[in-house]
Amino acid sequence: MSFQCYMPVRVLGGEDAVARNAKLLAGLGGSCLIVTGARSARLCGAWDDVTRALEQNGISYRAYQEIGENPSYESCERGAALAREMGAAFILGIGGGSPLDAAKAIAALAANPGMPWQDLFALAWKNRPLPTALVGTTSGTGSEVTPTAVITDPTGRKRGVSHPDLYAALSFADPRYTYLLPRAVTVSTGLDALSHATEGFLSPLCGETPAAYARQALPVLCRELSALAHGAELTPRAHAALYEASLWAGLVLNETGTAYPHPYGYVLTEEYGVPHGRACAAFLPALLERAEKYTPERAQAYLDAAGLSREEWMSMLSVLNRPLPKIPAERIDALLPRFENLKHYRNVPGGCSAQEGVRLFRALFL
Amino acid sequence: MSFQCYMPVRVLGGEDAVARNAKLLAGLGGSCLIVTGARSARLCGAWDDVTRALEQNGISYRAYQEIGENPSYESCERGAALAREMGAAFILGIGGGSPLDAAKAIAALAANPGMPWQDLFALAWKNRPLPTALVGTTSGTGSEVTPTAVITDPTGRKRGVSHPDLYAALSFADPRYTYLLPRAVTVSTGLDALSHATEGFLSPLCGETPAAYARQALPVLCRELSALAHGAELTPRAHAALYEASLWAGLVLNETGTAYPHPYGYVLTEEYGVPHGRACAAFLPALLERAEKYTPERAQAYLDAAGLSREEWMSMLSVLNRPLPKIPAERIDALLPRFENLKHYRNVPGGCSAQEGVRLFRALFL
Repeated sequence: MSFQCYMPVRVLGGEDAVARNAKLLAGLGGSCLIVTGARSARLCGAWDDVTRALEQNGISYRAYQEIGENPSYESCERGAALAREMGAAFILGIGGGSPLDAAKAIAALAANPGMPWQDLFALAWKNRPLPTALVGTTSGTGSEVTPTAVITDPTGRKRGVSHPDLYAALSFADPRYTYLLPRAVTVSTGLDALSHATEGFLSPLCGETPAAYARQALPVLCRELSALAHGAELTPRAHAALYEASLWAGLVLNETGTAYPHPYGYVLTEEYGVPHGRACAAFLPALLERAEKYTPERAQAYLDAAGLSREEWMSMLSVLNRPLPKIPAERIDALLPRFENLKHYRNVPGGCSAQEGVRLFRALFL
Repeated sequence: MSFQCYMPVRVLGGEDAVARNAKLLAGLGGSCLIVTGARSARLCGAWDDVTRALEQNGISYRAYQEIGENPSYESCERGAALAREMGAAFILGIGGGSPLDAAKAIAALAANPGMPWQDLFALAWKNRPLPTALVGTTSGTGSEVTPTAVITDPTGRKRGVSHPDLYAALSFADPRYTYLLPRAVTVSTGLDALSHATEGFLSPLCGETPAAYARQALPVLCRELSALAHGAELTPRAHAALYEASLWAGLVLNETGTAYPHPYGYVLTEEYGVPHGRACAAFLPALLERAEKYTPERAQAYLDAAGLSREEWMSMLSVLNRPLPKIPAERIDALLPRFENLKHYRNVPGGCSAQEGVRLFRALFL
């Protein structure tokens, strides 16, 4: 028996989740900074729902709409300055992983003025971060249910900041906000969710609770992504199914963390602009092969849970993962020090090493 | 999509859960009151594990071992006085539902000296309850993962006190503590867990998250309880499986609450001494029949999840539920006012009324 769980976020899902639960926002304080990207929060309808809920509850707000993909430390620090200036009681993020993660980082930075940037990544803040409320608008990140913010540090590197203080107080998950997502975004965020569920389920450290969550996520993700690989239309039903599955996958991520697809994927995103989900999923076939070698029963249990044959699963990924970059040998070899001693290796069947990482990059991208 | 969840307890399950996670106790403060029943906490090994963990972390403690079955308000108030006297920073409950529920009530009472007893049941405390840590020793209550304490009020009535302030900070679930439980206790606590999963899954308000938890709990509970009904030996494997399933069932309970089997069962317990789990399970066949009438697809989904045919399920309950009391007609009819407007009726397929409750009692116990 390995029942274990900790996920203190109050998650409110379903249509009209924000309007139905607007009163809970008042419990977080009387003013907030809304953190979003440039446009999508407004286009999808979340902005209107959120501001109406805030106004109905007498909560004043200001908007900070400067969050791009792979949010930078600097953009978070600017948001934190704004939050301090207005005396925000809480931070409300609207968006996919980038604004949600940025909201968490801003909550920590706002409460700790003058803290050196290194201390954010070292989890060395002195004051407890402000509370956050998150409103998800994509089906992938899992950020709604994890204590993690992935932020690009001032040296240009994507790094995960993970601490229980960063769990949101509230996460709203209204699938309607995902209905207008472009196909490419839906595929990439869906692949991100698939990576969370896969990396967690195949981890030697996966206990019974995350395994149960993965068994909720995997069949739906594989059914919907496989249909997309075969050219199916995107429908509201498919969007809603993907969103729900992404939350289950987020719960897996929350319990297990990730294996090498995530940190290796960061390289493809930072240097070659591959969207995050596709960047991670590029490494999933190799991860399954590793599981087949070191923990074959688990690999089979994975495919059973996914509801696809090995061939169907591989074919789905090879369609959805295209195109992948070509990387010169000298660039690959230069990654060696970066791949040393990653904590993610504990989640890899049979373990892993920097050398093996470099070999994998050569096999995939040379 | 109806993904919804809130369960902020950090649950630490598995063998040696207390020893492996002893340091987390220090985060709750430097002194605690240990709340237990008279003997079982010591017999099962939990007492030694807990006191060793407290000592290793420099946490002083005092024991309050006066919690009986269906703990009374008065016994909780005496515990609270002791906690205040020693200046306890937190309350640590060891046991089945009774000591765990009592620990939650003591945590609220200790922080609110002089509060009238009615205010506990009205959730009207002014000061936030002390934090609690719970160490479960039976496979049924679910108290480890709910914000509920069932306490017998000064008028002799069992009443649920349920508030987010009452979630434990930590819950330890080491299945070894359940290995020596007598067969009758294992059956009754297992039936309690089965009631939680069944009442939740059959509720018209059951969303996708509790349904997923129930699908974890039901097949295991039905397999193990059915084996016990057929005379199987109790093994450590069976105990551990039942404990884990009881935690999943507790997660169902946490999200949905209960239907009529719980409040109706309280009558059998208060007046006829029927153990809590058996008292609730006495009403499960009627609840399934109601689901078959009003929500037949859901009833079939329930049996599919349980992994038993209808006949097998009914036969399991009829064996394990014996003996049930006989109740005179005038006592049954006198229950009418008690059964008016129970909030639990919202969880009953087709709804319910006090009159129907009385008719059910007449059918079952006359």
